This record gives sequence, C-alpha cells and structure tokens, in this order.
Amino acid sequence: MAAVALLSGGLDSITAALLATGGGEVVHALALDYGQRHRVELERAATLSAHFGFIYHLARVSLSDWGGSALTDPGVAVPTGGLSEGIPPTYVPGRNTVFIALALSLAEAVGADQIVLGINSVDYSGYPDCRPEYLEAYSRLADLATRAGLEGRGPRLIAPLQRMHKVEIVQAALELGVPIELTWSCYLGGAEPCGRCDSCRIRDAALAEAGRIDLMTAVGQAALQAGG
Amino acid sequence: MAAVALLSGGLDSITAALLATGGGEVVHALALDYGQRHRVELERAATLSAHFGFIYHLARVSLSDWGGSALTDPGVAVPTGGLSEGIPPTYVPGRNTVFIALALSLAEAVGADQIVLGINSVDYSGYPDCRPEYLEAYSRLADLATRAGLEGRGPRLIAPLQRMHKVEIVQAALELGVPIELTWSCYLGGAEPCGRCDSCRIRDAALAEAGRIDLMTAVGQAALQAGG
Repeated sequence: MAAVALLSGGLDSITAALLATGGGEVVHALALDYGQRHRVELERAATLSAHFGFIYHLARVSLSDWGGSALTDPGVAVPTGGLSEGIPPTYVPGRNTVFIALALSLAEAVGADQIVLGINSVDYSGYPDCRPEYLEAYSRLADLATRAGLEGRGPRLIAPLQRMHKVEIVQAALELGVPIELTWSCYLGGAEPCGRCDSCRIRDAALAEAGRIDLMTAVGQAALQAGG
Repeated sequence: MAAVALLSGGLDSITAALLATGGGEVVHALALDYGQRHRVELERAATLSAHFGFIYHLARVSLSDWGGSALTDPGVAVPTGGLSEGIPPTYVPGRNTVFIALALSLAEAVGADQIVLGINSVDYSGYPDCRPEYLEAYSRLADLATRAGLEGRGPRLIAPLQRMHKVEIVQAALELGVPIELTWSCYLGGAEPCGRCDSCRIRDAALAEAGRIDLMTAVGQAALQAGG
C-alpha cells in the first residue's frame, strides 16, 4: 500500500517516514508552505524526498494571514534565550490540525492507508497538538471523516517518534542513513541555523549526547567547548 | 465574545452564522479558496459578509493539486442527472476537516470562543464529513488541539442547521433577512446556477416548498411548470 508522510525538512519527520515505511511502500511526502519564516526547510523537504525516492507534494495554506505565532508573524520574536515552561510563542495556532487534515485529504485522493507524523511528546516544545491524546482524538476523527473510513479502511495515523527521546531519534536517523546535514530544524530563516532557538537547542543537545558534535550548529559547538 | 463562521457563499452557511450569533458578537467570516470550480461563491461570501458587517478573511489552501473530486478536478464531471445513493463524486476528500482546522486556527489567533458551521445532515449530499458523529469527534479534537483548550476554554463547534430540513433552513433564512438572491449554491462555475446539480436541486425543491418559486433557478422554475 501507500503512505503519506508529512515532511517538514527537519530531522524528525524524515526519520519518522523511514521508520514507519521501511521500503516496499510508495511514500507520498507532503510538505506545507504555510508562510513560515524558515522557508529553507521546504527546500530541504524536497531534497530529502528526492534522496529517498518519495513522491513529493507541496501544498500551500495561508496560516500566516492571521499571525498569532513567532513562526509566521514578523511582529512576534522567536525566543532564543533557552527553553521555558508553558506553550512558547513559536506555537502556530491549529498548525498540526491543519497539516494532518491536508494529509488526510491527500491520503484519500491517492488511496494511502497510513499517515506518518514526526510528532514527539518527550523532548519537544510543549505544543498541545503533539500529545498522544491529541493524536488519538484525530485518529477517531479520521475514521469518521473519510469515504474510506466509512468502508472500514480509513487511514491510520502513525507517530513512531511519539515517545522517543531526541537522542534516540538522532540514533535512529543515523542508523537509517538520514543525511542529517541536509535536514533543517532551525525556526529562524537565516543562512545558517541559529543554534539558539528551542529547536536548535533540543537538536544540538541530542547530537552532543549521540557523540556527533560534528553535526551540531556552530553556535552549539562553541557553547559546548566554552562549557566543557 | 467573538465567533468564527465558515462562509461558503451559499445559503446554509450565512443562515447558520446568523442563527448562531444573532447580533452583539464580533463575527469573523472565513471563506476558503481551495481551487473550486464555482469560484463565484467566494465573491458571494465577501458580499454577504459585508452585508452583515462581519470581518472577512479569505484563506487559500491547495486541495485541487491532488484532485479526487468533481468540484476541484476538471477531469471529473459534476453529476446533473439527479440525486443518487452513496457518496457522490462532488465529495472533496477531507474538505470539511481542512476547513474546520483552518477555522480553529483563526479562532485561536483572534480569540473566538465559537466556530459556526453550515453543516447539515438531513437534506444533504451524503458526505461523511457532515454527520453529527463527525462533528462530535471534531469537538473533542478541538479541546485537545489548542492552547485555549488546555486552559478549558477551547472553541465550541456549532452547527445550528445540523438536523434541519432544507425547507426549514430556507424559512429561517427568509426570517433572518438573508438576501437569498445573492447566495450561490451551484457546484458548477457558470454565469447562472445550473439548476441540475445536486446542490441546485436540493435548494430549488426547498424554495418551491417554501412558496418562493421566484427565488428558484430558471431551470428549476421551468421544470416545475412542466411538471405541474
């Protein structure tokens, strides 16, 4: 059968796609242009998709029109001072709900029986729409929402990274041959990853723990050397 | 408080918006450009929104890229031979799931506490994503998906037309002062409504039953005169 994999261009989503499918299946990669600052991730999604022989789809959706997030609204700053408690300003209202809905639409149009998500609820940014109970509720909705669901073969939502620590994700990525240097996780849209946003910090810490300091951001490497 | 109302430009959604809000509230109307054939409905949504003093938002989402429906894929014909059993080819995979997700995103960004939908499951086209159990599952998801939901004030999904017959909707629209002549329900993108697609047929039958033959399509009026 076929799978739809939401691909952000980051480390998690490509690792999830490979963990869940593992060859033999047709994989439809779905990247979303939602007006994000870090548009370089879309190029990386296309590159990673081609690297692994996926069928690439790019959908556009205008989540940036109403702002509400540091990732889409130029008037809201991306925090770079370190992780903090609560839901951070990089949370995009309804983003995963919209993305999974689009994946559901694509899955139904191409006849895919699974939707693979890079969602993680261990070493993550505290977004409400990454939690297991959220995904369970969405699975129930997917069964009711679609023609295939009515016929008892609605697409399954699969999140293989859900309960993995970031270092385990990095280790899996390395084992699966993910070209980590091509993935883009930084929330900012600079030429190089900033090393200071939540996403860079979580990733750098995991790469350090996995012994792959060479793959860390320049800022992360400098901080590690200064600290050690 | 504020409400988000999904507005299609048709008769049902504007009637639902007025039934649910009834003055006093700020209403954010949300129209969706998803590559539909019947793009005239978007102009009508803007006109109706202005008529009732709503704040108008137009979001774009590329559901037409992967086709799968007579409403978005030029290669699939819109049936004009009358209503039939089962899910018709005008069903757009995942459409309502995507639309409600976008409404949820807007509601969170503007702080709206309700989302109003024109969904109906009595005189309708048999789409799986119009049924009450679908909406209940989505309400559960909305509570889990959002920052507001975490704080116990997630937006409520309201479908005031859910269990109304189409003739009751027409009667409500007339009482609420909906300019029915400005609403657009036809699935085809012609200069005049076709009178033959499911949507035109359902609407014409209700207008006839409500005694407003003057508001029916020209084709519908001619058929009524030929039949009677």
